[in-house]
Amino acid sequence: MKNILDYETVSLIDEDDALEIIDQTKLPGNIDIIRLHTGEEIWNAIYLLQVRGAPAIGVAAGFGLYIFMKYSEAETYAQFLKELREKSDYLNSSRPTAVNLSWALKRMEAHVKAVAVEKLGIEDEADPKGLFNREVLITEMREESQRIKAEDIDVCRRIGENGLTLIEDGYGLLTHCNAGQLATCKYGTATAPMYLAHEKGLNIKVYCDETRPLLQGARLTAFELQSAGIDTTLLCDNMSASLMKTGAINAIFVGCDRVAANGDAANKIGTSMVATVAKRYNIPFYVCAPTSTIDMNTATGDDIKIEQRKPEEVTEMWYKERMAPEGVKVYNPAFDVTDNELISGIVTEYGVIRAPYKENLKKMFDENK
Amino acid sequence: MKNILDYETVSLIDEDDALEIIDQTKLPGNIDIIRLHTGEEIWNAIYLLQVRGAPAIGVAAGFGLYIFMKYSEAETYAQFLKELREKSDYLNSSRPTAVNLSWALKRMEAHVKAVAVEKLGIEDEADPKGLFNREVLITEMREESQRIKAEDIDVCRRIGENGLTLIEDGYGLLTHCNAGQLATCKYGTATAPMYLAHEKGLNIKVYCDETRPLLQGARLTAFELQSAGIDTTLLCDNMSASLMKTGAINAIFVGCDRVAANGDAANKIGTSMVATVAKRYNIPFYVCAPTSTIDMNTATGDDIKIEQRKPEEVTEMWYKERMAPEGVKVYNPAFDVTDNELISGIVTEYGVIRAPYKENLKKMFDENK
Repeated sequence: MKNILDYETVSLIDEDDALEIIDQTKLPGNIDIIRLHTGEEIWNAIYLLQVRGAPAIGVAAGFGLYIFMKYSEAETYAQFLKELREKSDYLNSSRPTAVNLSWALKRMEAHVKAVAVEKLGIEDEADPKGLFNREVLITEMREESQRIKAEDIDVCRRIGENGLTLIEDGYGLLTHCNAGQLATCKYGTATAPMYLAHEKGLNIKVYCDETRPLLQGARLTAFELQSAGIDTTLLCDNMSASLMKTGAINAIFVGCDRVAANGDAANKIGTSMVATVAKRYNIPFYVCAPTSTIDMNTATGDDIKIEQRKPEEVTEMWYKERMAPEGVKVYNPAFDVTDNELISGIVTEYGVIRAPYKENLKKMFDENK
Repeated sequence: MKNILDYETVSLIDEDDALEIIDQTKLPGNIDIIRLHTGEEIWNAIYLLQVRGAPAIGVAAGFGLYIFMKYSEAETYAQFLKELREKSDYLNSSRPTAVNLSWALKRMEAHVKAVAVEKLGIEDEADPKGLFNREVLITEMREESQRIKAEDIDVCRRIGENGLTLIEDGYGLLTHCNAGQLATCKYGTATAPMYLAHEKGLNIKVYCDETRPLLQGARLTAFELQSAGIDTTLLCDNMSASLMKTGAINAIFVGCDRVAANGDAANKIGTSMVATVAKRYNIPFYVCAPTSTIDMNTATGDDIKIEQRKPEEVTEMWYKERMAPEGVKVYNPAFDVTDNELISGIVTEYGVIRAPYKENLKKMFDENK
């Protein structure tokens, strides 16, 4: 079996300047590595969930904008910017709700504008002095998209190193959903401490909740950990209490979608249930969070709006035959909020933040500005 | 839609003296009522899970033994008993692990022997005085099988009445797995208070955990409650914490497979997780248990052996395509044990038993011997 860590989820291949991704719609059955040569192909890959996970999508979009613009025939700065904004809007339409997508696209545009001023001396978009140099801007876009990716890998690696301080040899670890390498460029967030522990030769066993309704734990997390040679066991979401009671779990690592200023953490539905049970069995529960997901403008978890998703995810699963009676009502929230009192620590790229979260998260941001 | 309460899960139809069941393998898509005319057909229906649920299987087996013996051509008591034991062993082989199955078959044989002594005056199996009367014994077997069924319905109804004292108008109720009418002859155990509340005109909303891996909650509980006209909502097992936090749930009713003398209750995997979360949100958690499932010879939940089931239930679900990587290890226990401290009450046919369970369960048995 190929080791998923031998690949990067999203990478620019020098030999033909194309984007290479693992087609995640084929997992866990097949590891199909595909190359995307045009911006349209990248739009399509994001739209079809061939590449998914907020950080990975952001990186792919950055590369996508570069690949679009390297074919630009713009002869003026104004034309170039107009084209860049059109392509950016187009890429942004592939998954309109993913924040990292628009964040990466805006960062690419901002970089082009900064370079235009600093390197080319262009003081306004009309460029009256004719200082526009397409090749310089395209080269800079390539480099900026590589930097976005490098920063993602660096943040994940640092989360991994900080999380690793919480793992001892022989530990059993539990995770929920996929906050793995496949959702980022490398290492993942919740999985980063696991990969680093494994690289370092620690014996660990990882248990993966399957994570209904979309089964990201079974399809993606179990797959990527197993492919990396980590001792991996899959379980249904309702089995973790039974497992914790046996003493098999020493620590729990999960990812997050948003952390509020008081430490309340929104993550995949079911996370708060795991945390509640962990507390009963005195098992430390850690949320792995790049600081980009910590939102100091959201006071508490109550201020996080939770999306209700379509009933068919629950009633029809992955196939055509219904598993539930026609017309039954369905409760299907995408996320839940884990109260800060259930969280033993928030693992960021700057260290492991402990309660009281309101004070300590603020302190971390103040110290790392 | 047909109302499931208009049918009994297992019933003997007078007009052609055949057993009528709902083919549960066709649910929730179709309500197929089928009639079984021979013992072999009944064996097959149990084997194929067309009838399932420990109490319902026991009743079906009792009827099965009667239906076998009504075609008996035995001319002596010894021949009759030999044939009865052969048919009993055969029926018992349809689902060897269901305790109610062998319990019902043994009860049928014991009744035949008691009648032979009391009504026919047969003092030993050799029947030297030739007092054997086949018709009398067959008629008694028919009546005994009807009594087994009537007692099951009576116990469920009384559990329902006792559980009903714990429900108020407007309540939201949660259940896990199927301890419903489809697992018994009528009413079910965990569902009995719900059916009686609905009959009485109380407004209740019932939320059903889908109950992975075999989805009995989605396929059976949601189906039977909805068909009875109860406001029914389905959710994945990892969503109940989110739901409890909203305040939608006022009480939880579950069934059980075995209750230990100290009140620890083994039930479908995931039950203890629901109970743990319920405690956090101060929601009462009730176990509905016919006294036949309370085992005073099992001291605590630690003495209950939990069966591990096959990995394919988790990795392949209901269809052919795998949802998890080949070769991944799977943790798949059938049941878990809910510690007595998480249980607000055990609802039996004799009333609602509260902590301290060890003393109060003993007292209940002493008072109702």
